[in-house]
Amino acid sequence: MAPSVMESMQAFWSTHFMLPSQSHVHASAVGEAVDGARENVSMLLGCDPFEVVFTSGGTEANNLGVLGAAMISHAGSDPSDLIPSYPCNCDVPPPHALISEIEDESVVAAAKHLRLLGWRVDWVPCDTQGFVSVEAFASRFEPTTRLACLQLANPVVGTIQPIRELTDRCHSRGIRVHCDATAAVGRIPVDVHELRVDTLSLTAHKFYGPKGCGALYVRRGLDMHPISFGEPREMGLRAGSENVPGIVGFGAAASLTARCVEEAQGTLEELCERLVEGLSATLDGRIRVFAEHAERLPNTVAIELTTEAKRVQKAARQIVAAAAQSESPPDEITRVLRAIGCTDRQIGRTLRFSVGWTTSREQIDRAVDLIAEACEHASRS
Amino acid sequence: MAPSVMESMQAFWSTHFMLPSQSHVHASAVGEAVDGARENVSMLLGCDPFEVVFTSGGTEANNLGVLGAAMISHAGSDPSDLIPSYPCNCDVPPPHALISEIEDESVVAAAKHLRLLGWRVDWVPCDTQGFVSVEAFASRFEPTTRLACLQLANPVVGTIQPIRELTDRCHSRGIRVHCDATAAVGRIPVDVHELRVDTLSLTAHKFYGPKGCGALYVRRGLDMHPISFGEPREMGLRAGSENVPGIVGFGAAASLTARCVEEAQGTLEELCERLVEGLSATLDGRIRVFAEHAERLPNTVAIELTTEAKRVQKAARQIVAAAAQSESPPDEITRVLRAIGCTDRQIGRTLRFSVGWTTSREQIDRAVDLIAEACEHASRS
Repeated sequence: MAPSVMESMQAFWSTHFMLPSQSHVHASAVGEAVDGARENVSMLLGCDPFEVVFTSGGTEANNLGVLGAAMISHAGSDPSDLIPSYPCNCDVPPPHALISEIEDESVVAAAKHLRLLGWRVDWVPCDTQGFVSVEAFASRFEPTTRLACLQLANPVVGTIQPIRELTDRCHSRGIRVHCDATAAVGRIPVDVHELRVDTLSLTAHKFYGPKGCGALYVRRGLDMHPISFGEPREMGLRAGSENVPGIVGFGAAASLTARCVEEAQGTLEELCERLVEGLSATLDGRIRVFAEHAERLPNTVAIELTTEAKRVQKAARQIVAAAAQSESPPDEITRVLRAIGCTDRQIGRTLRFSVGWTTSREQIDRAVDLIAEACEHASRS
Repeated sequence: MAPSVMESMQAFWSTHFMLPSQSHVHASAVGEAVDGARENVSMLLGCDPFEVVFTSGGTEANNLGVLGAAMISHAGSDPSDLIPSYPCNCDVPPPHALISEIEDESVVAAAKHLRLLGWRVDWVPCDTQGFVSVEAFASRFEPTTRLACLQLANPVVGTIQPIRELTDRCHSRGIRVHCDATAAVGRIPVDVHELRVDTLSLTAHKFYGPKGCGALYVRRGLDMHPISFGEPREMGLRAGSENVPGIVGFGAAASLTARCVEEAQGTLEELCERLVEGLSATLDGRIRVFAEHAERLPNTVAIELTTEAKRVQKAARQIVAAAAQSESPPDEITRVLRAIGCTDRQIGRTLRFSVGWTTSREQIDRAVDLIAEACEHASRS
């Protein structure tokens, strides 16, 4: 978390420990701080403040983006006002959703839950670069298709997806588009008007903000149903007392990111390249960079090494990089690498690296040495 | 938030900014801290650590407590494995839930959502002390009753409810009991084994912990369905990256509360009495204390004053106390006071006070002076 973000939150843990909805005069400072944070996030995304719905994280934002399109709702307090769920109403054809097969589990699992609400769900495959083409979606369009889900960038291999083309194709058929941008915000500029998405999720802890804080952009006028229940907050789309310090920190991180993201891109790219070149040179070119030929996030690179990733992690404890978990059910790294056609052996040898604003060239060089050492030690033993 | 709680969180915003599920060695310290927090919360409640499910707050905990009993679920990946929701399966009589009418809106709204899943819901009234009797529940039992919801203590008037008697009556009929203890934990000792509840919700910010953190106690072996979707965390009952700093702070607050709650009770009671006596003396006994004859929380007192609560708030800005919001829909204070039979005029004149571990007698005396002054000024104008 950025020091300036931590600082912005301090007063809201103690002096201003109120809720914006409270009736006494001291609550207004808290309300203003929450409004300010909402404005900062809206400026980062290029939308209006009332289009920003704060959530408890990226998972809740993705759940809301998917299920908010679908939840059955009741029109009033009388049970006869219930809108029947689709499986009950056999005269209406079930609505249909298209979900890319390399979405985050919070999108995948929400889409599976859609089926319990009577929807049909089809999965849209990616190519060997982790790229999901608009044609792959379009060839699956049906007259009942109502929702398409595609991430802005893949968090494992970094591939950037063709969101704008997808939204153009979808909107001409009345299909709404939910975009999981949790891996993209903070690494590349994200403008919801340019992308023309209907909903877009982000999470603060991916760009130097606090954990436990996410948001969903909800396009003005979009028909949405809340998935949490209580006193309505957040434009009626969420219930629960606001996590005020978290929201304030989210706002500070959004403002920091809006100022720095474009400039940082080049530096991050250079650091990733340095890592790849360094490893390639010391390991005689025997490494493989995933999605090498795709447009990718500047900070993320997944590399197949010459030995088990778990052994590298063990031998080079200073390295913080993600390996696939071997336990079932398959984790995200496993799911994505399988989808792009990797064998289990390749998956077991892969580390996903990410660099940040505070990563130095010296750290990259040290990482190259440590990893190369661990790989060579493994090949000798 | 307690200073010791804030301190406990610091390292997890920066040095230990990882997730317990990550694969590298540095994540294990984070996993241990989350385990420690879970143990602290379990010791506060008298349960096992794996019976504690961390959530984003009291609302999510109450939503899970209510809807987790009811969500339709799918047995596998095949759509034919779907368990149909009740409205579709006309051979099965709809399950029935009994909800006290003075529950928090996060319980009330979740119960209304139950009806969309095919349940029937009945509301159980309270008496003029805000007390919900076990007989009021028992007289509404039906063969299909599956769930009863009753708060441990009412957050507006402070009335403590007969949970243990209710659970005894419910369990003999196979009815599960969800108990919202968000207003009680930190103010009175809460032991889930003594109460014999099936699920019980709490929220950290009510006892000197951070905002954005709650938990649900889920009795071992209870059949529960998650209401959030993604990589399963928290014993499979929640998805989403853990809010590690929040959870650690929650644990520190739980440990602090376990040590202090019994001792603090007497002091809190004395402060509340001093407030009531002071106001009664300076306003010639023209005040009314709600639920005066009920067993109540030691820290909460709702008082009808001799003038509009909003005018008192305006005239005595140093006082932080809650008044009913006059806008529709009715807020919690309005709903509870209406349920115990108050007129709108009485509701408009009521302030709900709470005292805390750092409240002093001098502050109480000053509050009495300020409120009495505001009331007398209003009566002259």
